[in-house]
Amino acid sequence: MHFQLITQDRTSAARCGQIHTHCGIIDTPVFMPVGTQGTVKSLTPDELEDLGAQIILGNTYHLYLRPGAERVARFGGLHSFMHWHRCILTDSGGFQVFSLAKMRKLQEEGVVFQSHIDGSRHMISPEIATQVQMQLGSDIAMCFDECTSYPVTYEYARNSMQLTVRWAKRCKAVHDLEQQALFGIIQGSVFSDLREECLEQLEKIGFDGYALGSLAVGEPKEEMLAVLETITGQLPESRPRYLMGVGTPQDLVEGVRYGVDMFDCVMPTRNARNGMLFTSWGSIQIKNSRYTDDQSPIEEGCECYTCRRFSRGYLRHLFMARELLAYRLNTIHNLHYYLQLMQQMRTTIKQHQFEQWRRDFYNRLAPLQDAN
Amino acid sequence: MHFQLITQDRTSAARCGQIHTHCGIIDTPVFMPVGTQGTVKSLTPDELEDLGAQIILGNTYHLYLRPGAERVARFGGLHSFMHWHRCILTDSGGFQVFSLAKMRKLQEEGVVFQSHIDGSRHMISPEIATQVQMQLGSDIAMCFDECTSYPVTYEYARNSMQLTVRWAKRCKAVHDLEQQALFGIIQGSVFSDLREECLEQLEKIGFDGYALGSLAVGEPKEEMLAVLETITGQLPESRPRYLMGVGTPQDLVEGVRYGVDMFDCVMPTRNARNGMLFTSWGSIQIKNSRYTDDQSPIEEGCECYTCRRFSRGYLRHLFMARELLAYRLNTIHNLHYYLQLMQQMRTTIKQHQFEQWRRDFYNRLAPLQDAN
Repeated sequence: MHFQLITQDRTSAARCGQIHTHCGIIDTPVFMPVGTQGTVKSLTPDELEDLGAQIILGNTYHLYLRPGAERVARFGGLHSFMHWHRCILTDSGGFQVFSLAKMRKLQEEGVVFQSHIDGSRHMISPEIATQVQMQLGSDIAMCFDECTSYPVTYEYARNSMQLTVRWAKRCKAVHDLEQQALFGIIQGSVFSDLREECLEQLEKIGFDGYALGSLAVGEPKEEMLAVLETITGQLPESRPRYLMGVGTPQDLVEGVRYGVDMFDCVMPTRNARNGMLFTSWGSIQIKNSRYTDDQSPIEEGCECYTCRRFSRGYLRHLFMARELLAYRLNTIHNLHYYLQLMQQMRTTIKQHQFEQWRRDFYNRLAPLQDAN
Repeated sequence: MHFQLITQDRTSAARCGQIHTHCGIIDTPVFMPVGTQGTVKSLTPDELEDLGAQIILGNTYHLYLRPGAERVARFGGLHSFMHWHRCILTDSGGFQVFSLAKMRKLQEEGVVFQSHIDGSRHMISPEIATQVQMQLGSDIAMCFDECTSYPVTYEYARNSMQLTVRWAKRCKAVHDLEQQALFGIIQGSVFSDLREECLEQLEKIGFDGYALGSLAVGEPKEEMLAVLETITGQLPESRPRYLMGVGTPQDLVEGVRYGVDMFDCVMPTRNARNGMLFTSWGSIQIKNSRYTDDQSPIEEGCECYTCRRFSRGYLRHLFMARELLAYRLNTIHNLHYYLQLMQQMRTTIKQHQFEQWRRDFYNRLAPLQDAN
């Protein structure tokens, strides 16, 4: 994997680049749709390609439990299993072990937990998480880390960060898949000195990219932005920077402004299935009765598959009738919105018009957001 | 609407034809995928076109209750509402009123019932059913009828058939949408003389096509085939013949053999969502653990979208994980199977090889069906 910086914005830390992987090129800043169980819920790989997705995320925790990484490996890896031939990033399983699994027990060795599916007992260690990701054959693997919730004490955050660093060393030690990049994850909660220390330690180990974990986990937005501002200023320019699990469209804009290159979040896909649709002037709830007789598309001028064919009234009907097509058409629209937002940012950064675009973005959003 | 008979098989009643409608041409014998609530569950209209569907069915009962026929009319009719520009046949609502609605009360005037959705009280009469279908703007509308269950007494069947004839007169009297055909429905349970009398009465009224109702409602297969044999011999050659709600692949083959032109059934779509997949040698349950590591497609050589991309192992994973994509990929495969089956029959009838093809169909099916 090789990262090429193409444009650095003049008035902010925003930047454009390209990640060259075994599977192809990823234009950054990039949003990665989440394909938890070997599928971005409701969509085919063809639809993801049509939407312009260059990379998707697979969840190691889920795939480890079902269908199992060895099985996926026998199918030729995750790309082949799910018939997706562009890039895949796999997370380390850390976040899901802490958020989904039952009866988890954290040890120096790793985490013992019970499956949320059938209660079966498992242990994921840094070595296992790395091995599993090598079996899945993703293009970018993540170090196994402990995700801290918010708030935590300084002492807990420090101990946790130090554990994450020790685990990162162990991940790096066993990682030996040449075509797969390995990213380190910076922990330290909202404490800037811990984040900085973590980054310093991870850089000594040396990774292909650096991610920020345990942000957007409940802390005030200002705290998240403060961590972002501190840490992105110190990240090596030559490596991709990944803000994990973030976020709202506004979060993406602010992340890009602080120099983040990669994002993932379930928001566009999960909210689509709950009937919440993104537009440039805010979000709408399609189940709202005001859309019952509405013959206009979700957003006038939107070029997505859904908006070029279907009315709000029809989408509302599908959603109220719990029709499967509802989840799919909504998902297409929301992912189109997210991916186009990134496309716009890439374009305006290259044109050195990012700050102007950012002001316009908020101007479009604000007044109608209130009215909604 | 105009029906053109193209080929009459030499050794059976099987025949090929074309139904010319306002919306285009339908090659018969034809299978109509069921789009109950203004969507063939999980699929887009584009996918239905790619599958070669020339006509789909919409359920008047469901659309009348939600979103309402007047609303659909304001969207320009069902074609425009759901963005499907090929043909649509709407049923009369009769079958659903008798199978889904609560607290129904049958009167000469019509049927009073409570909605299965919210318990609200409604009345559907022949006039209302016809009016609703004109509002939906389907290409083929059906007369409102009473569906008899199985078994019923001769007396009940006779009274019911006579009511259906009186209702058919009322439907015809109010129907005045030139581009929409109106079909009569032959009732009379398994009693051949009642079926014949019904047909005679309906022909006096005069319809664009004739349907057989209340078959495949639990009667032994031989009884169904006996009715088919009797009645199809007497149906006017110049009108399309529609066997409602039927059936299995074998039912379609037998129906075609007796000269039926049109079929509809939820089986390919509903069974797909339950993981039952059709192949030329029988059906498989994708959740069966034998498919866990199976890298082959559902059916080797199948040209459907699903089989050209995905393995049984992946489809089983999606199904076990209850992923939305499972229902969709399974539906595509099953509809492809049904639509290709009809295509094969149309081809072999034209080549005067239908009986040979039919023997091959059963030869392929039988041995492995037992093994499954």
